[in-house]
Amino acid sequence: MSLEEKLQASIRQTDALLDRLLGPAATPAVRLIEAMRHATLGPGKRLRPFLLAQSAALFDVPEDVALATGAALECMHCYSLVHDDLPAMDNDDLRRGRPTVHRAFDEATAILTGDALQTFAFEILAGLNVAAGIRVKLISELAKASGMAGMAGGQMLDISAETRVISDVSEIVLIQSLKTGALFRFACGAGAILGDSDPSPLRQYADHIGLAFQIADDILDVESTPETLGKATQKDSGKGKATFVDLWGMADARRKADELVLSAIAALDGYGPHADTLREVARFIVSRRK
Amino acid sequence: MSLEEKLQASIRQTDALLDRLLGPAATPAVRLIEAMRHATLGPGKRLRPFLLAQSAALFDVPEDVALATGAALECMHCYSLVHDDLPAMDNDDLRRGRPTVHRAFDEATAILTGDALQTFAFEILAGLNVAAGIRVKLISELAKASGMAGMAGGQMLDISAETRVISDVSEIVLIQSLKTGALFRFACGAGAILGDSDPSPLRQYADHIGLAFQIADDILDVESTPETLGKATQKDSGKGKATFVDLWGMADARRKADELVLSAIAALDGYGPHADTLREVARFIVSRRK
Repeated sequence: MSLEEKLQASIRQTDALLDRLLGPAATPAVRLIEAMRHATLGPGKRLRPFLLAQSAALFDVPEDVALATGAALECMHCYSLVHDDLPAMDNDDLRRGRPTVHRAFDEATAILTGDALQTFAFEILAGLNVAAGIRVKLISELAKASGMAGMAGGQMLDISAETRVISDVSEIVLIQSLKTGALFRFACGAGAILGDSDPSPLRQYADHIGLAFQIADDILDVESTPETLGKATQKDSGKGKATFVDLWGMADARRKADELVLSAIAALDGYGPHADTLREVARFIVSRRK
Repeated sequence: MSLEEKLQASIRQTDALLDRLLGPAATPAVRLIEAMRHATLGPGKRLRPFLLAQSAALFDVPEDVALATGAALECMHCYSLVHDDLPAMDNDDLRRGRPTVHRAFDEATAILTGDALQTFAFEILAGLNVAAGIRVKLISELAKASGMAGMAGGQMLDISAETRVISDVSEIVLIQSLKTGALFRFACGAGAILGDSDPSPLRQYADHIGLAFQIADDILDVESTPETLGKATQKDSGKGKATFVDLWGMADARRKADELVLSAIAALDGYGPHADTLREVARFIVSRRK
């Protein structure tokens, strides 16, 4: 199977599970479940659950456990997208080629949808079919990755950064590592945690591809069209938000992304040919067109 | 010690713990931690942590464990207040006699503050000094109590109810039981879970006092002033939101609240004199003036 075929198969599995978990019986609040489905079941790369499944496969973790953990992670990621899109935050109308939740429903519903998706992520992890000690470890890791010292903290710094000029690469790297890096780190480390193994090499891999992913995003933001990306382009520099392309220029940004891909691949040396798909993912992250 | 003195001692303990947990080292996002402190460390009844501590005391749970669980619950409760106060939701300027988070900071910060407080609640529970099995059970219970089939679902139904006339008591009882009842149920049941005991009698107690609390709130909303309550009054019926006073009239609402207090006290029969403080709480809930 090509990487694209593997990705598509993983998307279908994750979507089927989310479709089942977010069924009409999940709550009497019909509008809420509809909005949660809108937020999670639209088209999307589902890169984080895919990374998680591939990392878990290195440790012979049962597929259904990896899949459920990935669904929890996707709920966490989607909650952040729903809230980031809100008028008080990035004020985006379009996400994955469809209206954002507050456009398709309304703002109050979008706030509650993000809230409930976050809660649901933890509910899924608490119910995983693995030892309680492993569940607690995953919950602790996901909370740290997504909370004040992770994703939410990164988003806060990112918003604060809009009101002034950032010329310091270390600051934009810190924001990236909190805002998007932390969930990548969770995605890759979770496979090892589920397999009761050391997550460090996979977290190193994650740090490299996470930063490469953000640089690639900044490059796509300049080079692509809203039609291809399914969301608005050139918003970040338009808002005075410093991007890696602004700081380094296009050629150096590309070169840095390529270097990070090589470092990511090197971090996988201990896993042999089993990690070939993860190596492909690293290359895909900088070569993707959306 | 009188109930008031016990409550004050519990508030001081919970505040001291939250003050320590939400210290400046918790995140590089300074504005976020300031807003999280504003949201959690203001004056408040801290009724949920108190109920939790009192329930835990029935089962000889170590005080520090009960306190940390209560702090997690208070973070969850405060997150819901921050988001409920947002302009797109209840649009409140005042909470506990101080500006709401979006007024003291801004809307984006308030959204992230609620988000990060929710995450932190789970992080605290995952790190409790008890067996992993008990931690997972608490996390699962708190997620169910606060998610789409609990607090967030109840808030969604409550918002949807504003756009039409509710004349059905069972519907308003359902909304209350999800929106505020579920966290009361968690507060009282958590003590038994921490003590590895059956939480059912305490959950019954919680259901009765939760409903009594909401009825008392509706009565206070009519009879009190914004100065006494520290928040706007008569907003609910002003917005066409059905209250128990609207549905039953003042005399019947009072009678029903008193009956619920008796039922709550009866649910504690198995615990003997150790549960006297919980009995006092039940009576306090309908006699409080704010």
